[in-house]
Amino acid sequence: MREQLISGIGVSEGVRIGRALRYSPGPSAGMAPERESIGPDEVAAETAKLRQAKEACAAELQAMVERTKRTLGEDKAGIIAGQLRFLDDPKFYPAMERKVAELHISADRAVREVTEFYAARLESMANEYMRERAADIRDIGGRLLSSLRGGTAVKLSELREPVILVADDLAPSDTVQLDPSVVLAFVTRVGGKTSHTAILARSLGIPAVVGAGDALDAVQEGETLVVDGGAGLCVRNPEDAYLRQAAELKERERALRAELEAFRSRPAVTADGRRVELAANIGTVPEAEAAAEAGADGIGLYRTEFLFMGASRLPDEEAQYAAYRRAAEAMDGRPVIIRTLDIGGDKELPALELPKETNPFLGYRAIRIGLDRPELLRTQLRAILRASAHGRVKIMFPMISSMDEWRRARGAAHEAMEELRREGVDFDRNIELGIMVEVPSTAVMADSFAREVDFFSIGTNDLVQYTLAVDRMNEKVAELYDYFHPAVLELIRRVIEAAHRYGKWTGMCGGMAGDPLAAPLLLGLGLDEWSMEAGALPKVKRALAQLNAETCRERAQQWLQLATAAEVRSELERFRAEVQD
Amino acid sequence: MREQLISGIGVSEGVRIGRALRYSPGPSAGMAPERESIGPDEVAAETAKLRQAKEACAAELQAMVERTKRTLGEDKAGIIAGQLRFLDDPKFYPAMERKVAELHISADRAVREVTEFYAARLESMANEYMRERAADIRDIGGRLLSSLRGGTAVKLSELREPVILVADDLAPSDTVQLDPSVVLAFVTRVGGKTSHTAILARSLGIPAVVGAGDALDAVQEGETLVVDGGAGLCVRNPEDAYLRQAAELKERERALRAELEAFRSRPAVTADGRRVELAANIGTVPEAEAAAEAGADGIGLYRTEFLFMGASRLPDEEAQYAAYRRAAEAMDGRPVIIRTLDIGGDKELPALELPKETNPFLGYRAIRIGLDRPELLRTQLRAILRASAHGRVKIMFPMISSMDEWRRARGAAHEAMEELRREGVDFDRNIELGIMVEVPSTAVMADSFAREVDFFSIGTNDLVQYTLAVDRMNEKVAELYDYFHPAVLELIRRVIEAAHRYGKWTGMCGGMAGDPLAAPLLLGLGLDEWSMEAGALPKVKRALAQLNAETCRERAQQWLQLATAAEVRSELERFRAEVQD
Repeated sequence: MREQLISGIGVSEGVRIGRALRYSPGPSAGMAPERESIGPDEVAAETAKLRQAKEACAAELQAMVERTKRTLGEDKAGIIAGQLRFLDDPKFYPAMERKVAELHISADRAVREVTEFYAARLESMANEYMRERAADIRDIGGRLLSSLRGGTAVKLSELREPVILVADDLAPSDTVQLDPSVVLAFVTRVGGKTSHTAILARSLGIPAVVGAGDALDAVQEGETLVVDGGAGLCVRNPEDAYLRQAAELKERERALRAELEAFRSRPAVTADGRRVELAANIGTVPEAEAAAEAGADGIGLYRTEFLFMGASRLPDEEAQYAAYRRAAEAMDGRPVIIRTLDIGGDKELPALELPKETNPFLGYRAIRIGLDRPELLRTQLRAILRASAHGRVKIMFPMISSMDEWRRARGAAHEAMEELRREGVDFDRNIELGIMVEVPSTAVMADSFAREVDFFSIGTNDLVQYTLAVDRMNEKVAELYDYFHPAVLELIRRVIEAAHRYGKWTGMCGGMAGDPLAAPLLLGLGLDEWSMEAGALPKVKRALAQLNAETCRERAQQWLQLATAAEVRSELERFRAEVQD
Repeated sequence: MREQLISGIGVSEGVRIGRALRYSPGPSAGMAPERESIGPDEVAAETAKLRQAKEACAAELQAMVERTKRTLGEDKAGIIAGQLRFLDDPKFYPAMERKVAELHISADRAVREVTEFYAARLESMANEYMRERAADIRDIGGRLLSSLRGGTAVKLSELREPVILVADDLAPSDTVQLDPSVVLAFVTRVGGKTSHTAILARSLGIPAVVGAGDALDAVQEGETLVVDGGAGLCVRNPEDAYLRQAAELKERERALRAELEAFRSRPAVTADGRRVELAANIGTVPEAEAAAEAGADGIGLYRTEFLFMGASRLPDEEAQYAAYRRAAEAMDGRPVIIRTLDIGGDKELPALELPKETNPFLGYRAIRIGLDRPELLRTQLRAILRASAHGRVKIMFPMISSMDEWRRARGAAHEAMEELRREGVDFDRNIELGIMVEVPSTAVMADSFAREVDFFSIGTNDLVQYTLAVDRMNEKVAELYDYFHPAVLELIRRVIEAAHRYGKWTGMCGGMAGDPLAAPLLLGLGLDEWSMEAGALPKVKRALAQLNAETCRERAQQWLQLATAAEVRSELERFRAEVQD
């Protein structure tokens, strides 16, 4: 048989070689239900059956939450907890009981209809994040059906021999049960980059390729596959040469992981002894604890929207205060930069009715919402300020695009301070107020801003999107998205230099900060603070340890003169090779 | 009775005082049809009735096209011609006949159902342009019903006494019949800024307010109204003071129009004798003829997408060549800058299947499509090059965001030249190749581009959108859109200076170029060419005639130091007052 390459979307890096196991998730796909309708006299019994299934399902999920908390940490457990919450949603499960009672349809059919209704509604939304949530709903529906029908599916948690899973799709609750020592990798026919399944695969360290399409149907149980999660490839009938290469890659990966592990606990220092401040981006309090353990010098970006996104009502001042305070305390004197609510764009909030927009990334989002709904911003600012009495907290405003917006945001912070002062509530009176630099106008006007703000944090993800007019989630243009574009570099230079001119500092909390290839450039431009996903810290520390700050400063001036992103990238790659020699 | 202000969306400027005439468009709104269903033996007769109605409607629209061509020019006639084309659509009218034949419903009901189906589908689209097109479909449906029922509506074309029309909505085919000497102004309950009705009102010079809402229901036939199309206001029971003020405004407007008329034929010259190049933006060949008559120094932007948007198939090289050549010849030696296809974003193309995007403004559009579909670009480049043998044609590429894109686009042009050379076809071998500057990255890297391009043309509309991350069509954030934002001014300065450093020139073809308030600033920054809707030429010429180029140069340096758009605007207003004293 000829070697065959099946390409999909790589969502979790790593190379694995193993035997294919085809997996069909639960009974929802195959087994037909007993019947579709019931008699009026059967309503009570059918409802009881449904309720039992729900309770079994809730217990199962609850157990899974606890298990996940122990193995993958609180935030990943939150994904399952979110499903559990959906099961308690006042519109979801009750709709099923109502259908049974009023339409005299079977519990099985009621589950399918209600699940389908919600999943289809989510899928019809333009927003990729919401569409992916449809998979979560289908997952619950499948579990309910499985309970109702007396589930007979292969139990993923009971697999003992190492396999590469091949499936149509994996539900988050399937994925969370995977044991990385048994499930070497997985490949699915459908799925996208932002699904919970993808996130969980990365956390578990299981290489994964999703969206591999119909080509996957031909894969036979037991045949040998190579999965390369970085390249987004699944190879059938690999030739010997390819197998050897894959084995080598796998070994190199293992060695690299071991080497990186050693960097985890060390501070970030360049080869010529310059100490660099490396911080972590977090979305939840447990992540702050994890970041502290991972040796982060602080939290460069606390995305508060996760506190809001999970909730059906807006969290009040007390709830916010409690979360912010815990994060501040977890970091024990190291800085925690709390960003005010950054919703809109691709992030919706169930508790806030946001308008449907033709171009949400150019719309009503972040500080624009905060300034438009002052009560929302005021509550959050009060909560952050109160937390500042318990650690080294800084406030950061997102999506600032003009001096007016900054001044209004600062005004709101000053008002909140004045209120707390009058109320005799303690807070850090010297708290730093900074802004995200993610709209091109703000980078262009960095000099004006630098006079008034305490710090900048460059959000490369949005800054690149706007500067290049590219939605990186849009596959038709995603390849145009590149933070090594010379215009982006020029704006970054401009921001850092403006800050230094006025004795302020500049951080970076976008994806670029976590890319080791960018390290010499950012070091050379004089970036003061780097914030990234905690998992990227060792890689960047390792890169910095090989660099000479002074050399990088000189080189950066040359790199900035290059005309294209490709040239920048290749010069950086050449420099990396030079340094590693 | 108390004076009452009804506010709506002003879509056509001007102040008028007159008596209200309530107008209900045709029978579709009121009269019930004879019946809904027919017997199987009546199908033939009902189909004949339907066909007759269609033919009457087509003849009526055809006559209207001819009339509009004479009165408002070819491009406005194109709006009606588009409706006529829809009547010939292979899916629209045939669906009605099929419904009559297969479902045994009356012709009346078939018209309503099919019309509603298409209109609702268009309305459900996120894109405002497509939504507005639903009004066009409803217009045809109404005409068909009117024909079927033996129409009895007030004929707008038969009005003799001056009135202010008050209506729920006006169809484009209603509007095109309005006689500006009889219909002083109109106000409608619904409608938007980009509707064809709004465009036609502006062309006819009839002040108009749309989207005035339910408040309009109270207006009685015969009562006195003041309509201020600039302010978007309709005033009931105006007090004497207001009436006097409105009369004054009206008079001032008349005087201003007369004054502007005098500028039409003069070249644009500043008070200190500096000649400024003022060009027109056009979308169709007849507009080129109109621009030449209006004394434009050239065409600064020929939007070729209109040639594509109306067609159900892509126009071939010959069709494009014919149009470009006519435009070049119409300008008789004056420059004509032809922009390659700029679709995507908010512009769809029936002949090209474009993907549905979450953020179309950050998506697959303009040169990105051209480079992705080289055949499309090649055909257009060949057509433009061939036209360059008949006038002073230049080529401009839209949405360039990187040097790679520019070099690939230039490469495509050079290849097309090489082809024509081999084929022995004549073209301008020194043709200028330039780019739109509308993506922030390109403005930031202006220096690199200036070495390679022949000219820049700043497209302020998109440049502002991206630089400020604001979709100006989105009412929740539209007020953040401002081309006087200091970051935008800084980018404009950067582009102009970079061009001059390398002996190149910079034009501007966005909305800012047609704003007289911006004139001193743009003059001061050294803008070389200004391109605008032909209607704005006299206003800008008049503004330039009052300015001293040297003074503006000095002032511009100060204006660039201001921190907010509001400050810039107020300084420019102060300067205007100073100059006019």
